[in-house]
Amino acid sequence: MSFDPSSLVYNEAGLIPCIAQDANSHEVLMMAWMNADSISQTLETGRVTYWSRSRQSFWIKGESSGHVQELVDLRVDCDRDCLIALVNQTGPACHTNRRTCFYTAIRDGDEVELMKPEV
Amino acid sequence: MSFDPSSLVYNEAGLIPCIAQDANSHEVLMMAWMNADSISQTLETGRVTYWSRSRQSFWIKGESSGHVQELVDLRVDCDRDCLIALVNQTGPACHTNRRTCFYTAIRDGDEVELMKPEV
Repeated sequence: MSFDPSSLVYNEAGLIPCIAQDANSHEVLMMAWMNADSISQTLETGRVTYWSRSRQSFWIKGESSGHVQELVDLRVDCDRDCLIALVNQTGPACHTNRRTCFYTAIRDGDEVELMKPEV
Repeated sequence: MSFDPSSLVYNEAGLIPCIAQDANSHEVLMMAWMNADSISQTLETGRVTYWSRSRQSFWIKGESSGHVQELVDLRVDCDRDCLIALVNQTGPACHTNRRTCFYTAIRDGDEVELMKPEV
């Protein structure tokens, strides 16, 4: 079946969440938002491109930092309202310079920092 | 630092996305939504509990199907607006009876079904 980005389910702002997962380690790196155009651009260029809600513009991941995400596989869920991008991640994915944005665990009622920023 | 669910960033409906990831295989199983109370309930009971947007009620995953998610670790991202629940998943996570909800890949402009429902 041919894929049409307009067949996905977007929220009221025209956005769909996309989970970036390292294609090799399978670590979940981050979650950000895409619109139909950024999905098309991601598929065409092979460079993962989100929609920045704060800047209201395309966000080619790593364009300024160099921490790019090369698309390996794009997946859609059963409800067609969430995506996974399997990626080859260059450098840390998180703006804090950590490998993943999910570096805080909740354990026994406390927040535990699982990793330090890379240097 | 002590964890307070009210310190997270919720959307206008009071919800935050939660990615369920298999703690052993690291496969991403599904994404659903939580509110502050379902986060507290998840941490207290060790049974992953979402907020059902369609039913507007707690959704104790697997309560009717038996396909429960035992919480192994809960993580929060840098922006505090997304969660990961690492889980021990009993049975398939997806309501279609597939292991994961993300069973469709977008490849060369086509949708490709990666797995069949379990029998």
